[in-house]
Order: sequence, then structure tokens, then C-alpha cells
Amino acid sequence: MTDHTNTLKPPYYAVIFTSTLTGEDLASYSQTAETMLSLAQQQDGFLGVDEARETVGITVSYWRDLKAIQAWKQQIQHAEAQQQGRASWYANYHVRIAKVERAYSWQL
Amino acid sequence: MTDHTNTLKPPYYAVIFTSTLTGEDLASYSQTAETMLSLAQQQDGFLGVDEARETVGITVSYWRDLKAIQAWKQQIQHAEAQQQGRASWYANYHVRIAKVERAYSWQL
Repeated sequence: MTDHTNTLKPPYYAVIFTSTLTGEDLASYSQTAETMLSLAQQQDGFLGVDEARETVGITVSYWRDLKAIQAWKQQIQHAEAQQQGRASWYANYHVRIAKVERAYSWQL
Repeated sequence: MTDHTNTLKPPYYAVIFTSTLTGEDLASYSQTAETMLSLAQQQDGFLGVDEARETVGITVSYWRDLKAIQAWKQQIQHAEAQQQGRASWYANYHVRIAKVERAYSWQL
């Protein structure tokens, strides 16, 4: 997550993507995930991302508005990656699009 | 995540909690985290949770409404755990309260 997202004032949007992997073709999964992250960062309206994976993988990406989310969903290389994801990497996934209404932080 | 949350129809709320640990007192952190999860599940309006930790820990909990989120924030054992978290476990954390407007799933 960038410092930018830490100080970002709501309202903005979060896309909560949770997934379970099949375990198939993990090297190409990792490589594509990395490419997608760097492409997302180039999209207009991209604000930041948090990611972690244990049993379930959670990627929360932050966006200026619904239009920016829609544009990223349809970006051509991302659309291809989604297809490849359904064909081999993912056992299941859930996408939730949510409007961040309040945000606060704490640090040592 | 329970099956219940998978099929849940928006609108509902997500609390996106991201954190970095100090690494201090990890055994009591894990025990308290487990206790908090089982207490949260007993709260009115609790719908489910997704969790993963790598460098950053992400816990996304799902709730019926803001009132249910507020009640959990103020639950006495949870309030104590938050205090203990700031005193020893967390280097930083971010809380985002977001209204889930759309949700869809895919599975093999």
C-alpha cells in the first residue's frame, strides 16, 4: 500500500478480490499477477493496493470511482488474464465492489 | 469465509483492516486474534470474514449494517484487545469502512 492511500480521504472505492488457487501453473500465475499489478498502477484513478495470501488470497485495490474500476476490468491484458485465471489458476474467486465511507489509521 | 457470505446480496458492509505487526508477543497476539474471531461471530449482524497475512495482514469482515460494526467496535473484550494491540502487537493499522454495492463469484 502506498503512503498515498494511507492519507486518502473517503469517499473512494475498494475492490475486494478473494480467491483460492488450484495450484496449477503457479509460475505463470505469479508472473501474470506481477504484470497486472504494474499495469493497474498505470490506470487512471488507481489509488493503491493491499495484498496477502494464506489459504485464501485477498487483494484489495483502491480506486477513485466506479468508472476507473470498469476501465481496469476491461483493459485488454487484464481481460486476458481473467480468462486465463478461470482456465487454470483459480478454483474460485469473489469480487466485491465497495464504497469506502470512513477510514482511519494508527501507527506507533 | 462462510458460504453464507458468498451468496449474500448487497448492500452490506465490509470493514477492511490492514496491519503490520511489531513481531512482539506473537503468541498472545494469535490467541487474542482467535478469541476475537469467535466473539465477532457471536455478534448480531456479523456475516463473515476473510483473512490472510504476509508482509501486511488483511482482515475483511462483513456486516449487516453500520450499527452492527459500531457495536462490535465497542464490545468490551474487543475494546481491550484494540488497546493491547496498540500497546504491543501493531506497528500500524488502517481501518476502512465500506458499503458493498456489488458482488459476484466464480467457481470451477
